[in-house]
Amino acid sequence: MTLQDIANALVEGCRTGKELENLDRLYHPQAVSVEAADYSGAGRETVGVDGIKAKHAWWDSAFEVHSADLEGPFLHGDDRFAVIFEMDATEKATGERMPMREVAIYHVADGRIVREEFFGTG
Amino acid sequence: MTLQDIANALVEGCRTGKELENLDRLYHPQAVSVEAADYSGAGRETVGVDGIKAKHAWWDSAFEVHSADLEGPFLHGDDRFAVIFEMDATEKATGERMPMREVAIYHVADGRIVREEFFGTG
Repeated sequence: MTLQDIANALVEGCRTGKELENLDRLYHPQAVSVEAADYSGAGRETVGVDGIKAKHAWWDSAFEVHSADLEGPFLHGDDRFAVIFEMDATEKATGERMPMREVAIYHVADGRIVREEFFGTG
Repeated sequence: MTLQDIANALVEGCRTGKELENLDRLYHPQAVSVEAADYSGAGRETVGVDGIKAKHAWWDSAFEVHSADLEGPFLHGDDRFAVIFEMDATEKATGERMPMREVAIYHVADGRIVREEFFGTG
């Protein structure tokens, strides 16, 4: 798959609720996910697809999502692409509604996503 | 200046037409600018603020800008931030109107922008 193929597949998967299938299909098993800030207090990096899946599961359990949208992909050279994510969600524990927009950068090597990095407004 | 200070100053300068002052004030003299693709045929990288200024001058001479907007900054850790740019411009030579959106990633070291990378939709 070319960078454009992988980027299109990632975006299509996010649009159709197939984020977990994306992880198995498009990511290297040792891919690294890096948050914009150390929200959890346990550091910004998660190493490995299993850890990234656990992060998704935590998110799904902690937030109620009202709407989600994305824009992209935007390509850079032959090894990175960006996606803009928008989400309107409520944290279940606090009832706080948090509209969010963030930029994600994906690094690709040998036809797999090896690193995802999130940029946020804090 | 913190990363947030630099990011805010970059965005404010772009909003107020002070891109060239941004380059002198916020960039390392040897900063590198990397395009999404090799549009010019001369490579994707421009090294040094003087070269980046020449790129701005070329752009200003080649395009008529109808409107421009941006969103951000979005921060990542303590050394990078993203900005989303939107521009509606016409290439003077061809008369072709080209609405554009791109994501820019800025790398900061020792209080200066040392690298800017553009991500495009091609």
